[in-house]
Amino acid sequence: MIREFFKERIDRETVDLKWVPCMITMCNLSCGIFALLAIIKKEFQLAPFFVLLAGLFDVLDGRVARSLDVVSDLGKELDSLSDIISFGIAPTILVWNVALLDLGGLGLLLVLLFPIAGALRLARYNISDFEGAYVGVPITVAGSILAFISFFALKYLIPIEIWIVLIILLSYLMISKVKIPKL
Amino acid sequence: MIREFFKERIDRETVDLKWVPCMITMCNLSCGIFALLAIIKKEFQLAPFFVLLAGLFDVLDGRVARSLDVVSDLGKELDSLSDIISFGIAPTILVWNVALLDLGGLGLLLVLLFPIAGALRLARYNISDFEGAYVGVPITVAGSILAFISFFALKYLIPIEIWIVLIILLSYLMISKVKIPKL
Repeated sequence: MIREFFKERIDRETVDLKWVPCMITMCNLSCGIFALLAIIKKEFQLAPFFVLLAGLFDVLDGRVARSLDVVSDLGKELDSLSDIISFGIAPTILVWNVALLDLGGLGLLLVLLFPIAGALRLARYNISDFEGAYVGVPITVAGSILAFISFFALKYLIPIEIWIVLIILLSYLMISKVKIPKL
Repeated sequence: MIREFFKERIDRETVDLKWVPCMITMCNLSCGIFALLAIIKKEFQLAPFFVLLAGLFDVLDGRVARSLDVVSDLGKELDSLSDIISFGIAPTILVWNVALLDLGGLGLLLVLLFPIAGALRLARYNISDFEGAYVGVPITVAGSILAFISFFALKYLIPIEIWIVLIILLSYLMISKVKIPKL
């Protein structure tokens, strides 16, 4: 259905269809950047919204690419580059602002741990051909969980110990070999 | 010489040498994150320092990987994921804070343009096998230029028109087909 929708509107002669999912991926990246700008402007309630919106685009780009039969290596690379920003950097820096500022050195370590684990997860995924199941929790899921909980942390106090355990656990789950079936 | 240095100190049985350049790449990523934290703390003079330090690690990881003969696809992927943060996101958000805040919608467009062009450059580089020369200005160079000029913009007023032209020009040069010999 998606294929028909785009085919009616886009002339294959003028626009290469492979750019349709890539443009959706760029919306994911843009949401990650807007999340960071929201954090800088101290609009902490807005940032999780952009991270979750990035998640929607992330689900959509893969589906559109498969529907249009234009899955490409370029799209896969762009997807990872967007994911590390929207789900690795933006949620961690949000959590740092919301909860880790007083932790000093330990806070900085946690801020590094999550994106590093996320980058390892994305790099491993990109060089593997394994289909059918994810190995390790996807950064999209882990980052969205952090963003979601940050939103509630603005209203309800979440003990710092919970944050520490949560960041370490999610980082571990991303680089672990746990298998998660693809939806 | 680098190979001898590490070989004396690291037992190949216990540590896979391919992780040595990967750890240097993680230092690049960490510098990118520290640059973003510096921007959030309004320490704008500190952020360019971290971007340029990330640049040093970026030069070093490739050289160490080649010296140790452990160039890997995993390392290449990690490198791109670090570069988009240290040279795509950090410098752009720094420039936004230093110069583009009053531009409104146009400022936001410019903040999106540079990292999107950078992501396209990195994705294209990762799926190509072309050796010997870079196609398009590397994001490391473009991002370092932005960070360097931002540092001076804190002391000397740079007209907004210069910033607009600079961001559009660097974005174009990244995705252009201009060939630059590798050092």
